[in-house]
Amino acid sequence: MVKSKWILAASVAILAVAIGTVQWEGVDAHGPDDHEGYYSADIDLDTAMKALEAARAKAEEMGVLMDIAIVDAGANLKAFARMDGAWIGSIDIAMKKARTARFFDMNTGVIGELSQPGGPLYNIEHSNGGLITFPGGVPLRNAAGDVIGAIGVSGSTVEDDHEVAMAGADAI
Amino acid sequence: MVKSKWILAASVAILAVAIGTVQWEGVDAHGPDDHEGYYSADIDLDTAMKALEAARAKAEEMGVLMDIAIVDAGANLKAFARMDGAWIGSIDIAMKKARTARFFDMNTGVIGELSQPGGPLYNIEHSNGGLITFPGGVPLRNAAGDVIGAIGVSGSTVEDDHEVAMAGADAI
Amino acid sequence: MVKSKWILAASVAILAVAIGTVQWEGVDAHGPDDHEGYYSADIDLDTAMKALEAARAKAEEMGVLMDIAIVDAGANLKAFARMDGAWIGSIDIAMKKARTARFFDMNTGVIGELSQPGGPLYNIEHSNGGLITFPGGVPLRNAAGDVIGAIGVSGSTVEDDHEVAMAGADAI
Amino acid sequence: MVKSKWILAASVAILAVAIGTVQWEGVDAHGPDDHEGYYSADIDLDTAMKALEAARAKAEEMGVLMDIAIVDAGANLKAFARMDGAWIGSIDIAMKKARTARFFDMNTGVIGELSQPGGPLYNIEHSNGGLITFPGGVPLRNAAGDVIGAIGVSGSTVEDDHEVAMAGADAI
Repeated sequence: MVKSKWILAASVAILAVAIGTVQWEGVDAHGPDDHEGYYSADIDLDTAMKALEAARAKAEEMGVLMDIAIVDAGANLKAFARMDGAWIGSIDIAMKKARTARFFDMNTGVIGELSQPGGPLYNIEHSNGGLITFPGGVPLRNAAGDVIGAIGVSGSTVEDDHEVAMAGADAI
Repeated sequence: MVKSKWILAASVAILAVAIGTVQWEGVDAHGPDDHEGYYSADIDLDTAMKALEAARAKAEEMGVLMDIAIVDAGANLKAFARMDGAWIGSIDIAMKKARTARFFDMNTGVIGELSQPGGPLYNIEHSNGGLITFPGGVPLRNAAGDVIGAIGVSGSTVEDDHEVAMAGADAI
Repeated sequence: MVKSKWILAASVAILAVAIGTVQWEGVDAHGPDDHEGYYSADIDLDTAMKALEAARAKAEEMGVLMDIAIVDAGANLKAFARMDGAWIGSIDIAMKKARTARFFDMNTGVIGELSQPGGPLYNIEHSNGGLITFPGGVPLRNAAGDVIGAIGVSGSTVEDDHEVAMAGADAI
Repeated sequence: MVKSKWILAASVAILAVAIGTVQWEGVDAHGPDDHEGYYSADIDLDTAMKALEAARAKAEEMGVLMDIAIVDAGANLKAFARMDGAWIGSIDIAMKKARTARFFDMNTGVIGELSQPGGPLYNIEHSNGGLITFPGGVPLRNAAGDVIGAIGVSGSTVEDDHEVAMAGADAI
């Protein structure tokens, strides 16, 4: 138990460093030097709609009914669509998955493994007005690897949700 | 543990497909072609009151004191009654059970099995301003099988709550 | 003052009767007799995306940056888009305008005239978790006149917001 | 302005004393002497349903579509019904009118006159998670004059709302 805690904690630390590195590299590579502050990569609406449509197409191909949310680099809602007949309760879950994925720049399912009873992030879901930490939320990155937002999908099993979210992420 | 996880995941998948089919059939069968949008089944007040009265009669027969809530297809409150002496804290629980059942078109207890520690929907209760995922919430369907709302009952054991909710659902 | 109060009250009365008639006609005309409950008109995703795109095109033509939200007949979010550079604070306002318009089946600006100090609906904004009652929210109707949802637009002056919302509504 | 403030303040004081007297008389008359604490009058479900049905019948007679809420002596929801086609936004308003009427044992419209800009209760609507202070909320009293709960009605003009609420109150 104690041992697995250390392994989990170590994993988070490594993940955090890895992500931090990617982020700084992104910023270094693209931020101009002649201003105070810096430039951060962000998703534009056309890209968000492309991810949304790709996720919707995947869901139709799989025969599942999904709520799909896209947030920008500031974790604020950028685009959303609910397929006809998709669960009403998944509106909020799709949004929370997208926000959660961007809040920590990880797939939501990774956080869910750490938030179990006894885990290092136990009940992290109580923060930020409510997180959703099971699969279906995925960070969105540009070609340079910068996180530019996130996609959250809800409406079927968590495996289906994740697969549809990946289809959206891969479209970028 | 791993095995039961697969069984749960499989159950959700089957449920999701089953529900998806019913919903699409409902929409296909009843949606006219000559309008924008479509027509979806909804509960009317007389039907809601019939379910409410049936649930109350069942509760009286069982000698339990219940809060009973009915929501419509949009998960908005349609009718409510609190029996004399029933728990005040069950007002919100009955409403949340009804909303939760309509949010995902499942009995609330089914969601509760999936939201346990280690389950695929762990801590889903943090979404939608608070879900209630123990038994007592049941979707309401019309004769054609369309979901037209849901009933939520709270005030006794979860077994009693579910039994009273079923009495309401069966009255439709 | 007294006179304008009467005019406002009369307007609401006429609106209420007009809306009531349309709703009941819709229900009478389309509700089958052989089921519990009834069928109510609702927006589908393709129609929602059409309204969203029409509103976005109008905003681009006017050179304004908008948040655009569409809710369904149950006042639940159906589709959303935020133009690049549009206000972050308008995400919630666009959603609340759409919900407010569907909550009362009126343009939000009409409610805002009635909710002023001394008006009959003073401080109605405190209900429903917060209403937005200035212009920019407009009900969406199908060809039969049934309310199937609403559009909310925020990001510029209330006159611009309303104009863009109307462009979305007129596309249906 | 100053004068009218005094008149308003005086009215409130007189109202408060009057209501206080009625309440204590009620308690004195009906509370048994052989217990610690006291007995307070409260509405039972049959009475609440009678008020609900009377209000609904009045609304049907007037041709208006209403949301009707009944709270008990503890200001907690006892019964609720939304007529088919009545505004979704009026669910919360009807409940808040009923609670507001019981919170202060006054018709909501009386409070609304005092909560205007410059009035003695300016912006009281910010308390208690949101009050509604325009007409449509009315305390419910038993034959002895004790307040046993309140009714809140929303769905038309405030005059109509009040008239339907009075029909409910008069049925007790």
